Amino acid sequence: MNMIRQIACNFLRHPRQLNGILEADAEILQLPDGRYLVTKTDGIYEEIHTGLYNDPYLIGWMAVTAPVSDIAAVAARPSGILLSLVLPPQPAVEWLTELQRGINDACARYDCYVLGGDTNFGESFSVSATVIAHIQEHVPLLRSGSKAGDFVFSSGKLGSGNAYAYKQLVDKSANVKYKPTARLEYVSLLRKYATTCIDSSDGLFPALSVLSIINNKGFQLGTELKELMCEDAINIQHHSGLPAWMFLAGPHGEYEFVFSISPERKNNFLNDAAAQSLTPILIAEVTNSISTDFIIDEKRIQCEPAFIPNLFQQAGGDIQRYIQLMREQHKKWTV
Amino acid sequence: MNMIRQIACNFLRHPRQLNGILEADAEILQLPDGRYLVTKTDGIYEEIHTGLYNDPYLIGWMAVTAPVSDIAAVAARPSGILLSLVLPPQPAVEWLTELQRGINDACARYDCYVLGGDTNFGESFSVSATVIAHIQEHVPLLRSGSKAGDFVFSSGKLGSGNAYAYKQLVDKSANVKYKPTARLEYVSLLRKYATTCIDSSDGLFPALSVLSIINNKGFQLGTELKELMCEDAINIQHHSGLPAWMFLAGPHGEYEFVFSISPERKNNFLNDAAAQSLTPILIAEVTNSISTDFIIDEKRIQCEPAFIPNLFQQAGGDIQRYIQLMREQHKKWTV
Repeated sequence: MNMIRQIACNFLRHPRQLNGILEADAEILQLPDGRYLVTKTDGIYEEIHTGLYNDPYLIGWMAVTAPVSDIAAVAARPSGILLSLVLPPQPAVEWLTELQRGINDACARYDCYVLGGDTNFGESFSVSATVIAHIQEHVPLLRSGSKAGDFVFSSGKLGSGNAYAYKQLVDKSANVKYKPTARLEYVSLLRKYATTCIDSSDGLFPALSVLSIINNKGFQLGTELKELMCEDAINIQHHSGLPAWMFLAGPHGEYEFVFSISPERKNNFLNDAAAQSLTPILIAEVTNSISTDFIIDEKRIQCEPAFIPNLFQQAGGDIQRYIQLMREQHKKWTV
Repeated sequence: MNMIRQIACNFLRHPRQLNGILEADAEILQLPDGRYLVTKTDGIYEEIHTGLYNDPYLIGWMAVTAPVSDIAAVAARPSGILLSLVLPPQPAVEWLTELQRGINDACARYDCYVLGGDTNFGESFSVSATVIAHIQEHVPLLRSGSKAGDFVFSSGKLGSGNAYAYKQLVDKSANVKYKPTARLEYVSLLRKYATTCIDSSDGLFPALSVLSIINNKGFQLGTELKELMCEDAINIQHHSGLPAWMFLAGPHGEYEFVFSISPERKNNFLNDAAAQSLTPILIAEVTNSISTDFIIDEKRIQCEPAFIPNLFQQAGGDIQRYIQLMREQHKKWTV
């Protein structure tokens, strides 16, 4: 699958494109006048066809939120959005209204407008959105730039992405609210302080894995993972008996920012955040040793950065098999 | 279908969006510094699933060509493109290579780069592309701005869009080459001379119908339609016995520009075009009477601008029924 993904995306790159492949959440092009064009396309298809997203309001909301979050992760603010829809030939009006309401609510939240789009009709519903932004006065923030000793923060508690996936795909009776917001309120802080940023759209461990590969660094998580998790994820964790780290393993995330701050700027960052009533959560330190190092039941676990994200690949996208693989791994780690 | 299309696209508009709905081939946003952002999203789905496009090279080529043509029709040149793909789970490598080759060849032709994209996997193959451009030193060209007495030109001979559709959907034995190019070589002429422009991506009569509605004007076509048609369309017309106007009726076009020039600038325009070895074709004059006025077998036909495009809607997208409706109409016009 990854090979195909690569073939599909392996085109000649623009000579003025700032970011290498995977080096930023969005695509950044330096314009002839020195400014930056920032764009991102995100399609919702697999999420719909696996049953992960079935509420048209949520689909509309997420179609906007996902690419806006990526734009914000490079410290830009969206100028506008274009939609490409494949709609069922005879959609129910209420269904369509809900889809549109989700899109409109998200646009209003992010001070962003739909500039245009294209609609096709067919059996296979999908929504794809392209967000466009410009950066004038500062350099875009990349996923690269972390140094050993940097502190890693998240913009909020984590785990609702997988908790929601658990509800949708495993246990419908579970109680999870899932309506992540692109954290635009962090953009000015990120511009001022962050050395790297990525969003947790694929979950925390996949985000750290990408940062590891791009920066050739590792991460040491200092606290029990439960302390990083949101209430819904903790509740489902209790209810399901699954270990906490599974809720941070992806592949479905919650669109919090995961970003690094150099040690000498940490205090100023925290003061500035507090002044804006923002409550970033310290989650890790950047290490020269290229591994992800975290704590389960007071025991230190150390693994290759890609080890946890790869479990989902190994399961071939089968959720039951994925949970089984994670359970087996948990046993190995904890006996 | 149109109602749904409208509901799907009817979002709050950006206060700085230059173009009203349908008023331009692409979406135009005035940026705070006065420049214009020009963008267009175009999805290929119905074309694939009806069998109109089945060659992966052509699909890749058209995915880029269609939105680049729209960008060029507002007199802009593309900066970059983003792709949103839904690929079959196990695509053949040759198939994927051909798709990529079509995309790359088109990008090379238009001096345009793929900035990024997103790939999903599922049974329902589709490609959607968003092209981005900036305009600095002139005002974007709209579909509005034609005055009575303006001359209407096309950038090339017409009819290959429907001729190709006839081959793909009705008679596989027909011989039609179809590989339209976005007519970027016309951009500087359009900037300098044109009062309006639209591309013939949906065919000539649909293009004229849109210009009629937007400008509250009509069109008088002065020559037999055959003289506007490309060789392939003329050949298929002979071979099939179908009347010529059907090949200009859409809904599948050939991406020539259809644009108007004021009478006082016509000669300069033609001289300038000739100096650049371009051979625009005079097709009509703009009239105050809101109708499309054309010649079949030396007989003047006059119809409502939307009359011909509506025949395809009336046929509910069924090609055989559409041809039947056009045959019946032809009889009414010619007896």
